[in-house]
Amino acid sequence: MKEDKEITIYDIARRLNISAATVSRSLKEHQSISTATRKKVHAMAKEMGYRTNSFARNLRTQQTNTLGLVVPRLNSYVVSSIIAGIENIASEYGYNIIISQSLGSAKKETSNINMMFDSRVDGLLVSLAYNAKNMDKFKMFFDKNIPVVFFDRGCEDPRSLNVVIDNYQNAYDITRHLAEQGCRRIMHITGDLSTNIYEDRCRGYKAALQDSGLSFNDDLLLVNDLTEKAGVEAGNHILQMTNKPDGVFAANDNCAAYCLQTLKEAGVKIPKEIAFAGFNNDPVSRIIEPNLTTVNYPCHEMGEVAAKCLIDHLSGTRTVHNANTIILRSEIIARASSLRN
Amino acid sequence: MKEDKEITIYDIARRLNISAATVSRSLKEHQSISTATRKKVHAMAKEMGYRTNSFARNLRTQQTNTLGLVVPRLNSYVVSSIIAGIENIASEYGYNIIISQSLGSAKKETSNINMMFDSRVDGLLVSLAYNAKNMDKFKMFFDKNIPVVFFDRGCEDPRSLNVVIDNYQNAYDITRHLAEQGCRRIMHITGDLSTNIYEDRCRGYKAALQDSGLSFNDDLLLVNDLTEKAGVEAGNHILQMTNKPDGVFAANDNCAAYCLQTLKEAGVKIPKEIAFAGFNNDPVSRIIEPNLTTVNYPCHEMGEVAAKCLIDHLSGTRTVHNANTIILRSEIIARASSLRN
Repeated sequence: MKEDKEITIYDIARRLNISAATVSRSLKEHQSISTATRKKVHAMAKEMGYRTNSFARNLRTQQTNTLGLVVPRLNSYVVSSIIAGIENIASEYGYNIIISQSLGSAKKETSNINMMFDSRVDGLLVSLAYNAKNMDKFKMFFDKNIPVVFFDRGCEDPRSLNVVIDNYQNAYDITRHLAEQGCRRIMHITGDLSTNIYEDRCRGYKAALQDSGLSFNDDLLLVNDLTEKAGVEAGNHILQMTNKPDGVFAANDNCAAYCLQTLKEAGVKIPKEIAFAGFNNDPVSRIIEPNLTTVNYPCHEMGEVAAKCLIDHLSGTRTVHNANTIILRSEIIARASSLRN
Repeated sequence: MKEDKEITIYDIARRLNISAATVSRSLKEHQSISTATRKKVHAMAKEMGYRTNSFARNLRTQQTNTLGLVVPRLNSYVVSSIIAGIENIASEYGYNIIISQSLGSAKKETSNINMMFDSRVDGLLVSLAYNAKNMDKFKMFFDKNIPVVFFDRGCEDPRSLNVVIDNYQNAYDITRHLAEQGCRRIMHITGDLSTNIYEDRCRGYKAALQDSGLSFNDDLLLVNDLTEKAGVEAGNHILQMTNKPDGVFAANDNCAAYCLQTLKEAGVKIPKEIAFAGFNNDPVSRIIEPNLTTVNYPCHEMGEVAAKCLIDHLSGTRTVHNANTIILRSEIIARASSLRN
């Protein structure tokens, strides 16, 4: 489909009637070449459609200036904001980003990781869909000293850096907050508990119950996929409970908002009868009425920090093994959905 | 940083005590090699960390199996949903995607496009931040017959395919709908009018006013950046107008929702005093009260169609020049924010 002929420095040299060495030095902005010549070479290179021969250079340097990105889902508020942060830093330092999503399939996740390896990325940025039972799928990266940085959902492998928030503490704080507002039966709605962020949030919820003198009760733990639809279903489920909760803490805002909306439409008074809290500070949390108490997730910053750590490692400024975990600041934002004064 | 030694087929051959040719054929699943041998070779290749030498292959075939993606902003509902659709198709056909965002900077957009060219993408998927005055920045792609597909925001160059929705018609329909609900002073809030999607929506709005016997009035056109903040400001602006609008059509849901919320908090009755409509069917449109009338934007499908067209072109199944524009189905969803019955 493409034209066969690739423009080389020899073609440019011929057209300008100068040596190939001069063209090469000009393109590299070598100071031994006059500004006028460099400008002339660049203009001709552009006109002729010359492309830096990054493949040949890659073969030589073994570097591709490419970072691989593996996430569960590209179109979520948190993930797309993290990616925007990653791109910000990567483009500043001249790195490309190759993206992939697993869509909840462990098989696709593994195949994405393999694809990144075959694409010879210089480093990998990963948010795993589920907790990896072992790190075998990253062995080839570790064996070749290709750095791997986990974000959002950390992993416990000592060869990698984690950039995360303190999910346990945030969940603890938000549950304590609901208890302080007078809630005695606090329900927790969350995702797959084999995923460490949900496991950590659930542990924080349970610890806060205990420290508030409340007992954990199985029928107050609801596990679903945290989607819009799951939120509506959770609301309908609560409406049918004989012994209803008087507080709900959902592991994301989207699910919390649609659950709250379903209850409200059925006449439940929020926060008087049921107080609500979510997680992420997603735009819906500021639109739902009453506005949703939530955790301010520093998504954009997380993307920037993860990318910077990886690039610093690649440039030799630091190594990802020095610190095993970077915990970003995050905190509760208390809003009308939980304030009973 | 990386280990120097790259595993070759010769290393695998030596370990298995077979010929390099047999290794090579096994890795390519050549039928002349027994299944047992092929399995043995694949297992050893995996164990030794062998990587398909895609660079060398790239140099030979001039293909990278990589698609470049240029968008204004990665973290918007529409764009992240489109990207999810693109990834879906690309990964199915074995293509990598390199992403970039221009963040409203024409300079960064041009540099992103150049970077994609230097990365030797097989094809380019583009949503321009602003209407390009000319297509010069894509000349190098056209010169090399590298296909370019524009999505969301089309372009008029005959060498490219556009995958878009009918922004003019949607804006026309939604404005007519507001007029039919009794609105006589309909305000339009929109983005930079030099961007074709906003220009088209504005033309549709004006045509609908005319066909409804309403006159266009300069003070009913508000141009901002359609963010959350701009929505709040628009609401405050409306509150201060002596001759207020009785209908608002905003070019995205996010801005519409925050504008509506600001007015509601000030005691304005929606839709009775001011009817509202947005665009995109963003999750906030289903959370805001009253729920927002909007246009159902087929984001995920747009990503899938754009990627499929590009890949079909690359595989020779079709060319992007055959059809200049593919218009996806989109339609109004009328909700409580505009229904006055």
